[in-house]
Amino acid sequence: MKYLLIAAITGLFCSCQTNDNGKEKLILGSPKAVVTDQINKDTSIRGPLAYAPEVPKTADGDTIDVKMDVHHRMFKISKDVSFTSWMFGNAVPGPVLKVRVGQTVRFSMTDRSNDTMRNVGMDMNMAPMQHSIDFHAAMVNPEDKYRSIQPGETITFTWTANYPGVFMYHCGTPMVLMHMIYGMIGMVIVEPKEGFPGKPDREFAIVQNEYYLSKKGDYYVPDTAKARLKQPSFVTFNGKVAQYVVHPLKVKAGERIRLYIMNDGPNNATNFHVIGTILDKVWLDGNPKNQLVGMQSVFLGPASGAIVEFVVPEKGTYTFVDHSFADADMGAMGSFQAD
Amino acid sequence: MKYLLIAAITGLFCSCQTNDNGKEKLILGSPKAVVTDQINKDTSIRGPLAYAPEVPKTADGDTIDVKMDVHHRMFKISKDVSFTSWMFGNAVPGPVLKVRVGQTVRFSMTDRSNDTMRNVGMDMNMAPMQHSIDFHAAMVNPEDKYRSIQPGETITFTWTANYPGVFMYHCGTPMVLMHMIYGMIGMVIVEPKEGFPGKPDREFAIVQNEYYLSKKGDYYVPDTAKARLKQPSFVTFNGKVAQYVVHPLKVKAGERIRLYIMNDGPNNATNFHVIGTILDKVWLDGNPKNQLVGMQSVFLGPASGAIVEFVVPEKGTYTFVDHSFADADMGAMGSFQAD
Amino acid sequence: MKYLLIAAITGLFCSCQTNDNGKEKLILGSPKAVVTDQINKDTSIRGPLAYAPEVPKTADGDTIDVKMDVHHRMFKISKDVSFTSWMFGNAVPGPVLKVRVGQTVRFSMTDRSNDTMRNVGMDMNMAPMQHSIDFHAAMVNPEDKYRSIQPGETITFTWTANYPGVFMYHCGTPMVLMHMIYGMIGMVIVEPKEGFPGKPDREFAIVQNEYYLSKKGDYYVPDTAKARLKQPSFVTFNGKVAQYVVHPLKVKAGERIRLYIMNDGPNNATNFHVIGTILDKVWLDGNPKNQLVGMQSVFLGPASGAIVEFVVPEKGTYTFVDHSFADADMGAMGSFQAD
Repeated sequence: MKYLLIAAITGLFCSCQTNDNGKEKLILGSPKAVVTDQINKDTSIRGPLAYAPEVPKTADGDTIDVKMDVHHRMFKISKDVSFTSWMFGNAVPGPVLKVRVGQTVRFSMTDRSNDTMRNVGMDMNMAPMQHSIDFHAAMVNPEDKYRSIQPGETITFTWTANYPGVFMYHCGTPMVLMHMIYGMIGMVIVEPKEGFPGKPDREFAIVQNEYYLSKKGDYYVPDTAKARLKQPSFVTFNGKVAQYVVHPLKVKAGERIRLYIMNDGPNNATNFHVIGTILDKVWLDGNPKNQLVGMQSVFLGPASGAIVEFVVPEKGTYTFVDHSFADADMGAMGSFQAD
Repeated sequence: MKYLLIAAITGLFCSCQTNDNGKEKLILGSPKAVVTDQINKDTSIRGPLAYAPEVPKTADGDTIDVKMDVHHRMFKISKDVSFTSWMFGNAVPGPVLKVRVGQTVRFSMTDRSNDTMRNVGMDMNMAPMQHSIDFHAAMVNPEDKYRSIQPGETITFTWTANYPGVFMYHCGTPMVLMHMIYGMIGMVIVEPKEGFPGKPDREFAIVQNEYYLSKKGDYYVPDTAKARLKQPSFVTFNGKVAQYVVHPLKVKAGERIRLYIMNDGPNNATNFHVIGTILDKVWLDGNPKNQLVGMQSVFLGPASGAIVEFVVPEKGTYTFVDHSFADADMGAMGSFQAD
Repeated sequence: MKYLLIAAITGLFCSCQTNDNGKEKLILGSPKAVVTDQINKDTSIRGPLAYAPEVPKTADGDTIDVKMDVHHRMFKISKDVSFTSWMFGNAVPGPVLKVRVGQTVRFSMTDRSNDTMRNVGMDMNMAPMQHSIDFHAAMVNPEDKYRSIQPGETITFTWTANYPGVFMYHCGTPMVLMHMIYGMIGMVIVEPKEGFPGKPDREFAIVQNEYYLSKKGDYYVPDTAKARLKQPSFVTFNGKVAQYVVHPLKVKAGERIRLYIMNDGPNNATNFHVIGTILDKVWLDGNPKNQLVGMQSVFLGPASGAIVEFVVPEKGTYTFVDHSFADADMGAMGSFQAD
């Protein structure tokens, strides 16, 4: 009933502002966020969501229900490294959300950080903590929608996608840098109303992020001092050190591959490169109007994204890296295996 | 009389070279700079100048007189931090200059560094020092126009704006890195002959810079060793730590805001982002021909600028940051308050 | 005979994939690389190659023979600093290769690292070592063509240039970061079939790279630990510290200069800037379709290139720098002298 009401009045918030070419009307703001002490019924994620490298499908309809909760859990980023993580859904990065320009997201999130203390004993890094979510794809008052909720609370708010692209989301609770290095990061893909131009044979979602960790007994904890020096311990694609070196992403020779890439930082740039091929197209921040062609790499700041397409030349193994090569050494390395 | 002469012969230096599209004639070089031991009459700044975040208005006329002097003064960047600063005009960054393509700037600057020793006792960091100015917006022989003058001397030279955009200026006296971290940095806005396209409701100038400081008694002094390691002590918008968090910039819901952004470095990139909205347009280095749209952030190297426009979605507080988030933590954070 | 065979069957590997605009057919893959234990007849480089700042001329023909070998040698980067280097050809960076879109490169390289031990006594940093080459301009299976060969072996393979631009090449043998900081880096220029648009008066090739060194007696050795921290000892244009400050590149006032710039990293970005002028045109990664205009600098990630053009305004000396100014201080500084 509450949801129906929100949907009904969203229209009132439309402004007469238009976008860059003066043609598309921007849907600005949304009704006030609602915070309650009722937790979501279960811990599952719901909506057009999938964990990277999978790219979710968009859902039909003008208003899309999206639900994911925050958990404090140990997260394993390599055979030997687990750390006290805070996360959206079940992983770092959180699930990829995919919506379409014009769709309104009706978002709900419970802070379950008070629910997971038992998993890691009494480590203070896992103590219950207030959290929030900030969608770079949204145009809303952050003071309201991105506000922090207490453990055991649930926040619900709506936002409408105005621009196509690849956008970051992350926890916006101070100190933000700390919440991000604990793992509270993810990606939203917004496709144009008519879908992205072109028909790649295959596509993957890739989120890059840095971990700043210190050892504590047999596990690790995030280290804000290292983060302030921008000296990461590990740099990964989709949260785990060199995971696609061990388990390459499968493609076929001659295929056109599209990647949705988001550099979630929180501090450093990436110069994303695929060894053995050339990026035929690059759309900066994932907007097809921002096209570069024939690039050997795409240089993305922390909180910048891109969609890239390339052709797999022949059978073989194509390693992709952050070509700021110290980052590749720290784990930002993966492979496409082409049969 | 000297000025009249300079104006009269500027025409002789026009070259037949043209710009990127072969249509606009470039005005190249200018008469020799003149250095005298006569100081400017007073210490005020003169010309189409204003301190950021204010954006100055351009002046009428083909030739514009611009005057600002160099001072050594203590400069306060936060409640607890003052440092031994060298500056253009009265602040770090120095005043924003705004001119129009085709206008000739007749620039004058006195090195008053021998005038301010008394302000800070005998600290050697404030000892009289030779200085200079390097305008990235100009096309002139740096050996001549950007040459160093001695304390008590005045340099006068002209340059003509050929390209629209947002450009850095800074002291070019070796070692340049040192002069920049002492505060000798600023921004020039050059608008196209017909003005920038579009009509934003409101505009601001934002200069980002890094401070590298060490404590010395109850104040700070610049630390070149830290600057060489690119590990800043503070990162700021318009020279002061988080000043617009305390005193937000006032805007209104639904307005289109234009920012003139200059990353004066001297070392690090910024990924400029406004929380709660999307950059509708981005013009790299402030040139409308270099347009990106629908960006969540703009990634600018040290000595790169941009003009960005965005719509304020609804009432609220919109924090803007360098999304290389360690920089935000070090002070590169501010707010727009939208009523 | 072997070469003829390779040339004859290259056609079989053509795929029906096309480039960004769907018009140009991409030549994908190539016959298997051949590795033998026969070394190339002599140590000279052969093909359309030249050491930067010289820009080689392209050769005629559809298939171009290119040969360069790997050597372990002491390399002097300044009056006081020599280091135990691994290099393509006779210098760091290796020679610039220039080809045309559609041309097939028939490449041959002997690993002569077992040939030079005597030059530097028994320093283990110069011990024979396996090597390889990775061309960012090529579209081939890296597992095959970029594979490592043993000292005394020769690898031969072909690749065809599909995209115009400025591309990196480097040794791809693990650990890659180490091989790059030893000096195994270079640049390939690929011009469009009809040549690059425009007619500059003069052109130069500029490769930027970082050195990470530690002192060992009277010479230096590369230091991978420093490279992992991205804290370089020196940053250079064309391999030697500030060489063009001492010996400026000669140009003339009023000329249009084109630079082929490649940031070979391996870790850090450059914000390339020419003091006293403005970059009239910038083609990101050297592709004329990726044009920016009126730029004060071009911000290039590690493994990103550009072609830039600017006009020399008047007689004088124009210093060019990486405007991440700590890098300029570490050697990334040079000059154009305009008569």
